[in-house]
Amino acid sequence: MSVPGDLVGQRSETVRRSNLSAIVRELHVRGPLSRSDLVGLTGLTRSAIRGLIGELVAGGLVTEVPNQPAGTPGRPSPIVQPNARGAVAVALEVNVDSLAAALVGFGGTLHQLARVDRPRGHLSVDAIVDDLVELVGPLLRAVDPDALVGIGVAVAGIVRRSDGIVRMAPNLGWRDVPLAQRLREALPVVAPVWVANEADLGGLAEHRRGAAIGADEVLYVMGEVGVGGNMIVDGRPIIGIDGYAGEIGHMSVNPDGLACACGSRGCWETEIGERALLTRAGFDPEGGREAIGEVIAAATAGEPRAVTAVEEVGRWLGIGISSLVNVLNPQLVVVGGVLERLYPLMARTLEEAVAVYALPPGREHLRIVPGALGDDAPTLGAAELAFEPLLADAALQLRLRSPAALVSA
Amino acid sequence: MSVPGDLVGQRSETVRRSNLSAIVRELHVRGPLSRSDLVGLTGLTRSAIRGLIGELVAGGLVTEVPNQPAGTPGRPSPIVQPNARGAVAVALEVNVDSLAAALVGFGGTLHQLARVDRPRGHLSVDAIVDDLVELVGPLLRAVDPDALVGIGVAVAGIVRRSDGIVRMAPNLGWRDVPLAQRLREALPVVAPVWVANEADLGGLAEHRRGAAIGADEVLYVMGEVGVGGNMIVDGRPIIGIDGYAGEIGHMSVNPDGLACACGSRGCWETEIGERALLTRAGFDPEGGREAIGEVIAAATAGEPRAVTAVEEVGRWLGIGISSLVNVLNPQLVVVGGVLERLYPLMARTLEEAVAVYALPPGREHLRIVPGALGDDAPTLGAAELAFEPLLADAALQLRLRSPAALVSA
Repeated sequence: MSVPGDLVGQRSETVRRSNLSAIVRELHVRGPLSRSDLVGLTGLTRSAIRGLIGELVAGGLVTEVPNQPAGTPGRPSPIVQPNARGAVAVALEVNVDSLAAALVGFGGTLHQLARVDRPRGHLSVDAIVDDLVELVGPLLRAVDPDALVGIGVAVAGIVRRSDGIVRMAPNLGWRDVPLAQRLREALPVVAPVWVANEADLGGLAEHRRGAAIGADEVLYVMGEVGVGGNMIVDGRPIIGIDGYAGEIGHMSVNPDGLACACGSRGCWETEIGERALLTRAGFDPEGGREAIGEVIAAATAGEPRAVTAVEEVGRWLGIGISSLVNVLNPQLVVVGGVLERLYPLMARTLEEAVAVYALPPGREHLRIVPGALGDDAPTLGAAELAFEPLLADAALQLRLRSPAALVSA
Repeated sequence: MSVPGDLVGQRSETVRRSNLSAIVRELHVRGPLSRSDLVGLTGLTRSAIRGLIGELVAGGLVTEVPNQPAGTPGRPSPIVQPNARGAVAVALEVNVDSLAAALVGFGGTLHQLARVDRPRGHLSVDAIVDDLVELVGPLLRAVDPDALVGIGVAVAGIVRRSDGIVRMAPNLGWRDVPLAQRLREALPVVAPVWVANEADLGGLAEHRRGAAIGADEVLYVMGEVGVGGNMIVDGRPIIGIDGYAGEIGHMSVNPDGLACACGSRGCWETEIGERALLTRAGFDPEGGREAIGEVIAAATAGEPRAVTAVEEVGRWLGIGISSLVNVLNPQLVVVGGVLERLYPLMARTLEEAVAVYALPPGREHLRIVPGALGDDAPTLGAAELAFEPLLADAALQLRLRSPAALVSA
């Protein structure tokens, strides 16, 4: 394709690359689409779509299959199908209670996922890196190295996005751990490694594949031992200047309140985190998943102290959600992590608090729902993070993979 | 210019319009620029820039003047100058204590600004609309009707952006006031009317013309009788699903705290709003600007009760800013309104609170500064709001103004 560069004032190569990426993003996010769908979604012309699809077929990213005749006149538009083995991402998660590894294909296909409990407490970085390498080994052996787009890592801590350094992870006992670099050195593959906060990635996954699909203004609240979150504004996640945005668990809800693991006091986390629930219910605050399960069972059975403990978490969850609703005016709040499991038991006190603390106009179009992805949300989000460079510049990624694969249409 | 539409897969008219708007936005925001500057800023080719500038000259939006020879070889690139009379916006502000009207030209030139005190309290909408029409009359008579792009209105209340209805304005006593429609009917011109919250617009003005120029991640906190704010994320203001985002004054900082004008209790506004300051300093909470001036004078002179009152506002300001820093990870916090005037007196307690309540990683690149635009920030932001449709689609705006003015290059 040879186009005089300045006919519309933009270099045609730039425009072509951005068009290719637009198509790749639609296919990854929405799955199989007809050529006509792609015309409608991207605003590109039919002939441009044809040429770009040709490049993606040559690059092994998609296949085209004939469409079923739809009973309408004219030739049916072929279906463009993401090739779930044509590009794959590896996802890792370092949670307070568990480690996980997953293999996700282009278009969102989950090929494999493995999760192992880990002893809670302050394990060394060496030990966790070793465990991750062991966990991910079988998954990596199943991957064509040319198809691996990258490795995404979700971690229960505050992460600098630019270099994947975990700046602060009180519940892991980490400070300034160069996790991206450590994994790059330890993993038996050559691939970029991207690290981000687990709640940021949980929110990304719920937005792309879970409870918040299609919503442009979303607040995601994830509560486990720590409490974090993620905000989608105008369809895009808020990252902040260094990637630290979303530390909603450290909003001050009670400046003279309880001491927080972060070193401050009265943080929202001290009222809605796992430890707060367990303490209120009369359990050991370090009881972990097992104790949480017992509290949920007791509250479900109507045991008064457990019921009150869960309802009190619901009330404080509602107070903090209200603050964020007033700040952000989202259309949807998704509640994830342990709070997702508690949701049915505390929906009433949560909603009562929102009715008091959120301004009436912002409540009108607001829906609050539990997450749809369960405990795997951050791992699935880590895979999405690893896919981002492909979605942002598909042409570059295809070229990096194999210069011969990119045929100029 | 005739371009086959699908050469790069996008309709050339769409691309041309978006390029024209890109140039118009750069000129409005940055002021006079050489053609070379525009090539660098937009990534467009030199010949495309030449053609688009030709359209803007024909439309009366810019003039071209020869550049001073710069001592370098080759012809100097002409300077493209925004014509401050070629497009003008009218701005209005309905504050708790005053009304304002301004005339702002393309490129940001402030032609005129008039402000009058208004009696505090719940005046009727009729009375305020009448006063605004009277205040803006002389400004409108100075405007070429063809050059008027629109009327922006800043109001101390929660505004639905889509229709300019003031949903809730406790300090004006308004609820569901169709202010945009009332002004369209009452003003002696035919022009679109856009209404938004005053703090949203104060933040927009500080970002475009004040203390936050060039920063992409900004939190703006404006405290007067009410407390509101605005967040710039990735260079764009957060609006929310209905335009209600930024009600940061109604974050819950103390769920068992004082009753708030909004109907809830313990809102941040109850600790850092004007009334909180005046009460703490031993003044009538409804004392208004005069009383605020006395508190500032007394605190400056070292009068202990006034000093303590201001410092306590500073401490609570720091607590709430910390929450929002943890949520958003901005690079810059701008403090406006009355808080801007109090800033030097409370900087110490503010910073002490931030050191306790904001997470260390998010504090590293954080600057907190007073605003640069004083009390006029919301009015100037209202003008920017009225310019938005021109910046978003300059070709459409030029065509609306006068079909003959738009010459296809």
